[in-house]
Amino acid sequence: MARVYERVALIGLGLIAGSMAHAMKRHGLAGHVAGHARSAETREAARQIGFVDSVHATAAEAVQGADLVVLAVPVGAMSAVAAEIAPHLQPGTTLTDVGSVKQAVIDAVGPHVPESVHFIPSHPLAGTEHSGPYSGFASLFENRWWLLTPPEGADEAAVQRLRSLYEGMGANVDTMEAGHHDMVLAVVSHTPHLIAYTMVGVADHLRRVSQSEVIKYSATGFRDFTRIAASDPTMWRDVFLTNKEATLDVLGRFTEELFVLQRAIRMGDGDHLFDYFTRTRAIRRGIIEAGQDIDAPDFGRGRKG
Amino acid sequence: MARVYERVALIGLGLIAGSMAHAMKRHGLAGHVAGHARSAETREAARQIGFVDSVHATAAEAVQGADLVVLAVPVGAMSAVAAEIAPHLQPGTTLTDVGSVKQAVIDAVGPHVPESVHFIPSHPLAGTEHSGPYSGFASLFENRWWLLTPPEGADEAAVQRLRSLYEGMGANVDTMEAGHHDMVLAVVSHTPHLIAYTMVGVADHLRRVSQSEVIKYSATGFRDFTRIAASDPTMWRDVFLTNKEATLDVLGRFTEELFVLQRAIRMGDGDHLFDYFTRTRAIRRGIIEAGQDIDAPDFGRGRKG
Repeated sequence: MARVYERVALIGLGLIAGSMAHAMKRHGLAGHVAGHARSAETREAARQIGFVDSVHATAAEAVQGADLVVLAVPVGAMSAVAAEIAPHLQPGTTLTDVGSVKQAVIDAVGPHVPESVHFIPSHPLAGTEHSGPYSGFASLFENRWWLLTPPEGADEAAVQRLRSLYEGMGANVDTMEAGHHDMVLAVVSHTPHLIAYTMVGVADHLRRVSQSEVIKYSATGFRDFTRIAASDPTMWRDVFLTNKEATLDVLGRFTEELFVLQRAIRMGDGDHLFDYFTRTRAIRRGIIEAGQDIDAPDFGRGRKG
Repeated sequence: MARVYERVALIGLGLIAGSMAHAMKRHGLAGHVAGHARSAETREAARQIGFVDSVHATAAEAVQGADLVVLAVPVGAMSAVAAEIAPHLQPGTTLTDVGSVKQAVIDAVGPHVPESVHFIPSHPLAGTEHSGPYSGFASLFENRWWLLTPPEGADEAAVQRLRSLYEGMGANVDTMEAGHHDMVLAVVSHTPHLIAYTMVGVADHLRRVSQSEVIKYSATGFRDFTRIAASDPTMWRDVFLTNKEATLDVLGRFTEELFVLQRAIRMGDGDHLFDYFTRTRAIRRGIIEAGQDIDAPDFGRGRKG
């Protein structure tokens, strides 16, 4: 595959940035990959694993001469990092991020971005419940969606170039408006994650069922709730704090709906339950027909390989 | 493996009974397997697939001469079937069921069981989102739990024999009190399923996010919700109607807990969210350490193979 960028700077060296580095290396997509992480331990790990060509003690140093800069830090940390690197971005550079929320990132990062820089926010719909520099792998983005939310009037060539990079990593790329992205993700990802966290928390508190029983018999619907409830706490805290409105909106609808089902159970309304459970089958069929699932589910998480 | 029963009668020929038949055949656990299903279409399918040695038009006929009778029909249908077969059970026969709820089955079936018959309710913690005679496979129970809830004073030899059958199919067998079983399952299976059904229903209703978007971007937490929400509607209707109290109890705790998290989101209480998400990681670690999960999750469902 042809080289897409000469010098890529990764700010943050966790699961996503690490996987990007591995993938760019495997597919020859970048000339040089520079990396920075706030923690000295993470920088040392990145050095040892060797997925970046150079490791830098500051973000400002890492972005020197880069034609692509990727912010791969928790959404809550984006603003400070953007402020730090802004004076060091060269004209014509593309700046992107991989945050799970887009409007909040635009609000936090946008004001710092020089006019000469192309700011194109993005979000790979890929991940695992693991985090940190050791968790990355080159195939994480293969056959996954990577959403771009370029601002109105964004440079077409710059958008196309970023798209080529992501497609080079095996991703499918779509473009949408930032606010719509946040609503879609609230439905397909953020609210399901909050629900899973909650269910696992409930199981943890129940005195009448021992924790060892929960663990032992988890292979009955509950186990994959625990998988997502093991995701990075910092990342998810920031997701909920920064996609607050859409998440609360979907959560409100969820509890409303849950109460109706709860009432049907209490009243013994079997027809209501049966009809509801029959309708939900249709979405599942749609997903299978769209080729978005295979026999072995993985809760949306890439498999190492 | 040694033969455990001479003649097994399966009442109901769906996923669980079909898988039992395949497994008994593979491991030589039964001399003859007789089967009955209410629907002529299912009986014909069973005949064609050939997983039973004889197919019978009535349950009464199927149980003739059987030393093990398995009720593998939805929980709501157990009482009528038990009443029908009771006069035809031979003395010393073991009668079991594979319902997901145990106290309700005991209440429905128990009164019909002759004194000379050993009634030992059971529940395999295994399944897929598929149903019907074509969905069964021999390895469904391998390394899965199969819970027995024998009544007080149950015949030890009969319990041991049933346990041998299930272990012969590859299952791990545990014994517990029926009411406790229902509470444990409400936590690890029934409530998670209801929540998944609800979340899929919400996504279906949201106008601002198109159904095609939900399907397209489902690989982000939502997809496995759709998998469980595609489970058999009749079975799940009966589960909720018959394990009403435990499910409502756990659901009450769930919404309580969800409201606390929802409030934390609304108030921007990041510390609360972070602490909560950190605690739920511990349960996940426990499950991995207990060997109850592997790298590729399958939402508690057996994989064909």
